[in-house]
Amino acid sequence: MSLTESSAIDIAKTASLASRRLATLTNTDRNDALTALHDALAENRDVILEANARDVEIATQAAESGDLSHSILKRLDLSRAGKYDDMLQGILSVRDLADPIGNVTLKTLLDDGLLLERVSCPIGVLLIIFEARPEVIANIAALAIKSGNAAILKGGKESTESFVAISKVISGAISETQVPEGSVQLVKTRDIVSSLLAQDSLIDLVIPRGSNDLVRFVKNNTRIPVLGHADGLCSAYLHLDANPDVAVKVIVDAKTDYPAACNSLETLLVHEDALNSVFPLVAKELMDKGVCLRCDVRAKAALEGISTPAGLLQDAVDSDYRTEFLDLILAVKTIPATGPAGSAVEAAMAHINLHSSKHTEVIITETKDIADTFMNGVDSAGVFWNASTRFADGMRYGFGTEVGISTNKIHTRGPVGLDGLTIYKYRLRGNGHRACDYSQGDRTWKHESLPL
Amino acid sequence: MSLTESSAIDIAKTASLASRRLATLTNTDRNDALTALHDALAENRDVILEANARDVEIATQAAESGDLSHSILKRLDLSRAGKYDDMLQGILSVRDLADPIGNVTLKTLLDDGLLLERVSCPIGVLLIIFEARPEVIANIAALAIKSGNAAILKGGKESTESFVAISKVISGAISETQVPEGSVQLVKTRDIVSSLLAQDSLIDLVIPRGSNDLVRFVKNNTRIPVLGHADGLCSAYLHLDANPDVAVKVIVDAKTDYPAACNSLETLLVHEDALNSVFPLVAKELMDKGVCLRCDVRAKAALEGISTPAGLLQDAVDSDYRTEFLDLILAVKTIPATGPAGSAVEAAMAHINLHSSKHTEVIITETKDIADTFMNGVDSAGVFWNASTRFADGMRYGFGTEVGISTNKIHTRGPVGLDGLTIYKYRLRGNGHRACDYSQGDRTWKHESLPL
Repeated sequence: MSLTESSAIDIAKTASLASRRLATLTNTDRNDALTALHDALAENRDVILEANARDVEIATQAAESGDLSHSILKRLDLSRAGKYDDMLQGILSVRDLADPIGNVTLKTLLDDGLLLERVSCPIGVLLIIFEARPEVIANIAALAIKSGNAAILKGGKESTESFVAISKVISGAISETQVPEGSVQLVKTRDIVSSLLAQDSLIDLVIPRGSNDLVRFVKNNTRIPVLGHADGLCSAYLHLDANPDVAVKVIVDAKTDYPAACNSLETLLVHEDALNSVFPLVAKELMDKGVCLRCDVRAKAALEGISTPAGLLQDAVDSDYRTEFLDLILAVKTIPATGPAGSAVEAAMAHINLHSSKHTEVIITETKDIADTFMNGVDSAGVFWNASTRFADGMRYGFGTEVGISTNKIHTRGPVGLDGLTIYKYRLRGNGHRACDYSQGDRTWKHESLPL
Repeated sequence: MSLTESSAIDIAKTASLASRRLATLTNTDRNDALTALHDALAENRDVILEANARDVEIATQAAESGDLSHSILKRLDLSRAGKYDDMLQGILSVRDLADPIGNVTLKTLLDDGLLLERVSCPIGVLLIIFEARPEVIANIAALAIKSGNAAILKGGKESTESFVAISKVISGAISETQVPEGSVQLVKTRDIVSSLLAQDSLIDLVIPRGSNDLVRFVKNNTRIPVLGHADGLCSAYLHLDANPDVAVKVIVDAKTDYPAACNSLETLLVHEDALNSVFPLVAKELMDKGVCLRCDVRAKAALEGISTPAGLLQDAVDSDYRTEFLDLILAVKTIPATGPAGSAVEAAMAHINLHSSKHTEVIITETKDIADTFMNGVDSAGVFWNASTRFADGMRYGFGTEVGISTNKIHTRGPVGLDGLTIYKYRLRGNGHRACDYSQGDRTWKHESLPL
């Protein structure tokens, strides 16, 4: 066994032991630790900002020599106005959320004196791998503690100094509380990640937060369940009866509000009978905002009459319908009124189910039945009717916080709140009850569902 | 691409397409298909039993020549009294369960006219791999249709003739209903399994039903999430204040009611102060039922005074505490009142969390606080107090049916009912709502939780 491998096992075992102790703490115990965390980070602001300034200095040089993107540099800087205070406030916001642990979601009296309960509990050990933003460590530590999970954190190399400083403060603060110190461990070296990803008997869930490449790397290199999404290829289907005002508002917002986000629009499907009515209005607004439209032949032809800024009207190629542009580019495809897949809405659904990343899709129509068909038939975490895909977000959904957005088909889907970091266990309380009495017919089941 | 690989992709694509259609059907549509399934299997009883008789004949020869176990032979035989009728009745029972699809579990008014709902929906495509029992095909087909999932079924080679006959009847029956025929596909050749396990973009969940070896093989050979359990290493902790009557009833039932079951007891942990009080009573009853006790030194010494049948009192070795005996054998270990792990209950929890398969564990005590500590701290799907581990079962929990028992830490845990075959999606209904209006402060969130 290599040194890296054995230290990965040690880290995972420490986390596992801490997780068992964490699982027995009360909400007050966990909240007290979050208060201590907040206070310690407030007190140590100067030390942490100094460490962060060292990271920023090195990153600035790397950015100037072209080895680092300016957006990473920007995300790295904790001294930007409001950023540190937001981080502190975020910890208190998580603390003040409802306790996700200990909620009874099923209560059945199996027989006299034999009571079954299903109760929410922490998952156990989380491995969280993230890139530049150093404030994420505080956010994730808060989420893990609130949900009673132990966390192993691996940050990006650009923010090493910041992470070490924040991590020291977190460890110091936690050690004065009921929460075991091993609940939050920071991993510095990159080469340990593969060994950690192999600890599927000790680590229960991996959460990669960062680029699509990071998520794909993690998904391809572990047997541990991964919560997250590699792609966000969101689509809109513009039905023939779309309200023009609704269509323009929803599609323009979905594409232009923040094109780099995973919940922004990448593909627009247009019913052929909307090509010469609603579509040109939408296209004009999009192009006025600088959006380049990659259109199939019919959609392009429909825009011939209107003046289009140079270069913003292009021919689509097949790969455009599989591309997450993350930029002011939109692929446009015409949907025939009827075809091999059936009606237009069925063809739109078939296109989406084949091409989409199962993140969020929207239909623009005035007909409830058509909208219902679409929302039932599209296999995505979010199915929207006349509303922007940009609403697919934990804060906007009212979850108070967001662990990430999941495009998985099991456990948790869409924006993930604290609930996504919990599972349940079954508690059964009896008084010497034996199963043999029921199979022999000496006793019969009551199976009485009790109010929660 | 090999022929096997391309046919695996075809099968998975067919299932995926069928699943999208299935997801749009009503409960009545799905129930009608189950009624048709039931009626067709009732009408074709003779044909199916003839096919099954051919399987049984070959298997009987194999059993006589020692190439097949008699228990497999027994499980294979559909003509045994009541078995066929139970299979038929099982389909109707599943049909009559509450619809697991379309349940709204969250309803939030994000803003005027902008309504968010979380609604249960099918997962998509299930791959179910099982061994001998041919009636499982009907059971699984019923569960899949009821929950709106498409299923790809692979049965054991001993029951090929039965599967083909049942499968033909199922396909015929379904083709007369709204449920698409591709919803249930039977796979006959063994070499296609590996190729199917590679279709992680089309298949959403694998459910292996059979031996521990089968489950382990599946878990080690796919990126698709696997629902199930390889092991059931259940433990009991006998606290010093255990009620002797409760202790005897619970432990004897847990060990002897059906030793081959995954929810039967394999390890008994005894508080040192119970060694000479309650433990001998329990041990005597167990040995009277033929249970061999593999004891550590102290537990064995505690039984010296009582008469023990020859061979039933043995010395434990370390591996006994990691062994799922599935037989009339029980590993016994003494827990000191205090030790490095803390109190006795803490030491018992530490042993269990290190050795157990996270299936079901029980504590025998008269003290509620001790029981609560145990039930919070033990990381298993079932944590029982003074009740037999044998209650860990979907029918006994009142779920009406059981898909299997999961020892996973995410999605679904313990006995899995129809709910375990569902996930949810978020539906958002608006009227031209844009996200930019909220970030610019033109509109503010309502986030009003509405009654369900």
